[in-house]
Amino acid sequence: MSGNTFGKIFRVTSFGESHGQAIGCIIDGCPPNIKLSESDLQIELDKRKPGTGIAATKRNESDSAKILSGVFDGFTTGTPIAIVIFNEDQKSKDYDNIKDIFRPGHADYTYFKKYGIRDYRGGGRASARETIARVAAGAIAKKILLKNGIKVSGFVNQIGSVKATNFTEKDIDKIYENEVRMPDENASQKAIELLKKTLAKKDSIGGIVEVRATGVMPGLGEPVFDKLDAKIAFALMSIPAVKGVEIGSGFSSVEKNGSENNDLMKVKNGKELFLTNNAGGILGGISNGNEIVARIVVKPTSSISKEQTFLTINNEEKTLNIVGRHDTCIAVRAVPIAESMLALTLVDALLEQKTIK
Amino acid sequence: MSGNTFGKIFRVTSFGESHGQAIGCIIDGCPPNIKLSESDLQIELDKRKPGTGIAATKRNESDSAKILSGVFDGFTTGTPIAIVIFNEDQKSKDYDNIKDIFRPGHADYTYFKKYGIRDYRGGGRASARETIARVAAGAIAKKILLKNGIKVSGFVNQIGSVKATNFTEKDIDKIYENEVRMPDENASQKAIELLKKTLAKKDSIGGIVEVRATGVMPGLGEPVFDKLDAKIAFALMSIPAVKGVEIGSGFSSVEKNGSENNDLMKVKNGKELFLTNNAGGILGGISNGNEIVARIVVKPTSSISKEQTFLTINNEEKTLNIVGRHDTCIAVRAVPIAESMLALTLVDALLEQKTIK
Amino acid sequence: MSGNTFGKIFRVTSFGESHGQAIGCIIDGCPPNIKLSESDLQIELDKRKPGTGIAATKRNESDSAKILSGVFDGFTTGTPIAIVIFNEDQKSKDYDNIKDIFRPGHADYTYFKKYGIRDYRGGGRASARETIARVAAGAIAKKILLKNGIKVSGFVNQIGSVKATNFTEKDIDKIYENEVRMPDENASQKAIELLKKTLAKKDSIGGIVEVRATGVMPGLGEPVFDKLDAKIAFALMSIPAVKGVEIGSGFSSVEKNGSENNDLMKVKNGKELFLTNNAGGILGGISNGNEIVARIVVKPTSSISKEQTFLTINNEEKTLNIVGRHDTCIAVRAVPIAESMLALTLVDALLEQKTIK
Amino acid sequence: MSGNTFGKIFRVTSFGESHGQAIGCIIDGCPPNIKLSESDLQIELDKRKPGTGIAATKRNESDSAKILSGVFDGFTTGTPIAIVIFNEDQKSKDYDNIKDIFRPGHADYTYFKKYGIRDYRGGGRASARETIARVAAGAIAKKILLKNGIKVSGFVNQIGSVKATNFTEKDIDKIYENEVRMPDENASQKAIELLKKTLAKKDSIGGIVEVRATGVMPGLGEPVFDKLDAKIAFALMSIPAVKGVEIGSGFSSVEKNGSENNDLMKVKNGKELFLTNNAGGILGGISNGNEIVARIVVKPTSSISKEQTFLTINNEEKTLNIVGRHDTCIAVRAVPIAESMLALTLVDALLEQKTIK
Repeated sequence: MSGNTFGKIFRVTSFGESHGQAIGCIIDGCPPNIKLSESDLQIELDKRKPGTGIAATKRNESDSAKILSGVFDGFTTGTPIAIVIFNEDQKSKDYDNIKDIFRPGHADYTYFKKYGIRDYRGGGRASARETIARVAAGAIAKKILLKNGIKVSGFVNQIGSVKATNFTEKDIDKIYENEVRMPDENASQKAIELLKKTLAKKDSIGGIVEVRATGVMPGLGEPVFDKLDAKIAFALMSIPAVKGVEIGSGFSSVEKNGSENNDLMKVKNGKELFLTNNAGGILGGISNGNEIVARIVVKPTSSISKEQTFLTINNEEKTLNIVGRHDTCIAVRAVPIAESMLALTLVDALLEQKTIK
Repeated sequence: MSGNTFGKIFRVTSFGESHGQAIGCIIDGCPPNIKLSESDLQIELDKRKPGTGIAATKRNESDSAKILSGVFDGFTTGTPIAIVIFNEDQKSKDYDNIKDIFRPGHADYTYFKKYGIRDYRGGGRASARETIARVAAGAIAKKILLKNGIKVSGFVNQIGSVKATNFTEKDIDKIYENEVRMPDENASQKAIELLKKTLAKKDSIGGIVEVRATGVMPGLGEPVFDKLDAKIAFALMSIPAVKGVEIGSGFSSVEKNGSENNDLMKVKNGKELFLTNNAGGILGGISNGNEIVARIVVKPTSSISKEQTFLTINNEEKTLNIVGRHDTCIAVRAVPIAESMLALTLVDALLEQKTIK
Repeated sequence: MSGNTFGKIFRVTSFGESHGQAIGCIIDGCPPNIKLSESDLQIELDKRKPGTGIAATKRNESDSAKILSGVFDGFTTGTPIAIVIFNEDQKSKDYDNIKDIFRPGHADYTYFKKYGIRDYRGGGRASARETIARVAAGAIAKKILLKNGIKVSGFVNQIGSVKATNFTEKDIDKIYENEVRMPDENASQKAIELLKKTLAKKDSIGGIVEVRATGVMPGLGEPVFDKLDAKIAFALMSIPAVKGVEIGSGFSSVEKNGSENNDLMKVKNGKELFLTNNAGGILGGISNGNEIVARIVVKPTSSISKEQTFLTINNEEKTLNIVGRHDTCIAVRAVPIAESMLALTLVDALLEQKTIK
Repeated sequence: MSGNTFGKIFRVTSFGESHGQAIGCIIDGCPPNIKLSESDLQIELDKRKPGTGIAATKRNESDSAKILSGVFDGFTTGTPIAIVIFNEDQKSKDYDNIKDIFRPGHADYTYFKKYGIRDYRGGGRASARETIARVAAGAIAKKILLKNGIKVSGFVNQIGSVKATNFTEKDIDKIYENEVRMPDENASQKAIELLKKTLAKKDSIGGIVEVRATGVMPGLGEPVFDKLDAKIAFALMSIPAVKGVEIGSGFSSVEKNGSENNDLMKVKNGKELFLTNNAGGILGGISNGNEIVARIVVKPTSSISKEQTFLTINNEEKTLNIVGRHDTCIAVRAVPIAESMLALTLVDALLEQKTIK
């Protein structure tokens, strides 16, 4: 069936395989009269591009986005925006060795079981290369949100056991200047050391990414199923390698009492405000005006250069080390993707809220 | 807009307020020829009923479900199944004192901001009483899953800092005999002590619930957005008071290396199997045949008898203690709800998978 | 799968069988703060009630609607509105004779082939009694439309070969005072004569219903699939017994030249207006500000008292005359239903249009 | 909002403007393991290509389709199939003269009112060029249907007052060899004469297209809204210039009695069959195993070379004749488009039906 569309009003339908001809998407439901150019997309795409930093793979792609429709004289027209990014560095031969095997931690086995056929080249549709479409669409979502006073940001909170603890809003604003996208300079250095060691072991390591949205007005999100936090959880969990999502205090609220966890309100200068933000900006599935805060855990990259035991499609066991281009910690590159998914969720909720006004 | 429908094929549309006339749902897309009676629903509804145990509120309702359509001569006909549960113990007067205030941790403020109007009686639509509809629908989902060899179960994993650590599958099977729904007898006793102390403090405490599904065939779930784990995250996060969801190793995978986190495969008696289950039964968003494992954190109940500072709809601060019927730890009653949401997610994925065969 | 929901934003999910316990629906996505009471629904329901006029069946039901949720203190709250109408005059015994046969022109055969099971009592889900839910939901849609200056009306245009030709807007306003709902008094008398003759022959006859909407602002409808006319066609064709839909000039445009069919525009008092309305108020799938005009053909009632040859579920031929309660011309009772479906389509398009503003 | 997606399971999301860079679509939900190549699409696309015959415009495009994803080694993989057709003959300068005017019968006015902006070049999104995407997607739908024994065909039934009356199934099979796609040679000649006269008058003329599907098993279609005929009506009415849809006897059933209109059944060689097909293959919204028959009326082309009075965006009246490339009777080119929409509707219903088995 059809699982490649995200959103109810601002709808993103994605396509493309890692080593097919192109990756892209159609965005249907984008409001008209938004200023939009290909360079708006490129700014965001460059943030997720492989090839930079200790954490990342070395795939060599320009990942340049073309807008095929829906924009006229520099403005959106309200009709579908088709975006296409042609794959350049396809190197299909790299992948002949994995044609008949199920790589551990990958979707090789499950795609094969689901469809009875799979495009094995670089993981095909299951490759994280599909996130290009998310980021391109997210760039448009971010523009619309900004026009409405909403700003989305993200950063790496933790790599292995190294946590970012000491940082300010300003550090987050400069996050893409940092090799591991940690806002805490000290933690950042430790994380780089950890990544070097991990790489030397031919292994990989997990990470936690935090995303935030400021300026969100109260009232976004729909009870009882399409709650804002449920949609955020859906959006973030759909990112490759993500295995957990939490909002506000999240899992740490298990040990809290209601009296500490409840965010009390005050009035200041005639405006209601919350004294704390354990709720992560969402109450009863609806935004409360506070900052939206969500965290995801990104599992250690499945592709490692270390030797592992595989199963072939003929059910034979094989021991191999896969030579290829792997991220040591994919959490680092997940930052712009997580931002995009939060932005897509929020823009959809924003447009949705207009229907009851 | 419309956020009260769950599922793509097996679609549950829910309605009802805490102190309105009734709670219920319509299930559209249920396959025909499933044996179904009201008592099938009642068995599950009785698991979530208030009024039992140290952790629970004392609301006195029979919560008996009526099937209004879609079943003929004891079998589903393929047409919509309408289920209604009339509210009995409405006691609307209880709630006059909260008419003009925004209770901390509740959706009072956000509903008011969203809609400009709210049914304040017992939280109205935001009350966890809406979960009756989830459990009634979940009962049908469970029946269909069982016919397909899939069994869903759940239990409380942690209350405050007390964790269930020592238990077997059998303990989970008897979970509804346990007052706090913890499969570990020792932990269970400690948790009851903790709850008593918490109650004495007029406070509440958080909890973690784990749900599992065994017998899930490989191939369920749709890339790239409607991944099985993304849909589970959506389903579970939409439960009132849930602030986090994790699959398999979840947040603990942050400190793992790829080489330990990858679940290797073997062939045993001609069947593929995974040696570990860090993936929680899902790879690339598609079930891998392993047990599905998900955990949610349920925040401490917002309604506490302790005095708290509120804001009124006129932006005045007030200090009050709300006398009412509160759960000390809602995680306990969340177990059948979480099971239901997992079952609804799986049955939808199961029917979805038929469309490509 | 699930085909019992209508609309994208203002979503109506319908349930119920002719001789089950109840008929009803949930409306999700209704804006808050709309004044609404059960009597608002009753006014419309009384228009479709059986038991009145030469054209109609004699089923004796009060068809009184209960609102179970979504309305508080006389206003909608934005949460789902559940409506239920309990069946009173069920008389299931009437239908034992049709248990094993496929009535000509009915859905008995197709339901059985589709589901392998059917509720044969009075046609079950396929009975036109399901239209109660459409009319109840339509009543709310009409209220919202009126608040936005849009008025929906309908009437019978033709019965057999008798056409309404001579009438004004005022005649349409009084249409429910007319036994056959024809605005032309002369045609109306002829139609009644025809119906009497048809009834005497134990037969039935077809009809054409026209629905209109005035006050529709330009801009409603979504290209390229969800065009306003496509959605109207869908809405109207989903009414039982409807076999054709046309917009504006409709089928008569086949013999026209473009130069006569194009509606030219003028400016009058600073406002654009169309000199003709061959387009029926819709251009390129989007409303143009002109009156929306649609017509449907309603086939002659399949249930007739005349003897017919049937097939049984065991593939035996039988000749029988079905004694029962039949409409001689269902087009007459289709008027409020067609109005409702047009109203539901327009309210959905109206709310949809808000998402791009 | 988003109106550019068709279908529930086999979902086609369309994009592109007449003089933008490309037209295309993403098909999500196509089953895996279907043999598919670009030439499969080309065969169908060539049927709708402009530039052939007396009825058609002279736009010079190769309209060659590229498949960007979802096909591997010649077979579909179950992942989204992106199709793109680049526009070659854009000639944007042709359209500078219509930049500020609302052409009669076109969507210029309504797009402008809806969006406040429009891509005026060749009608932009409202151009019938978008139907390329429908035909490309329809080609895949037809392949899947054929695998299931279902064959879709179409032809021109009427042009102006000239009707096709004398023809067989075989004539329909060769329809694309006929300049006006009428299966009746005699009528075909008269229609060509009529078109020549119409062209000489610088005018256009309407037409009726009939589409059929044979081999449809009983059971397709979903009550009560998503009926097969309702979905067909939606699908066909969404085609540019279509103003009416009828199924089976359609509008002619108004003058019929129930006793003539009911299709009686017989058993022949152990198989049920219908003696007549007034129902057009659909009863109660569900296919009955008989041939599906639907007809649409296509209004006379709005673009004519004759002088007409226009309104400008500044509300000034202007009299002009638009020099350009116009079809004299668009019904002729609508044949493959109508076939495609019927095929898309049927393949969706076919996959939908699998979910209840």
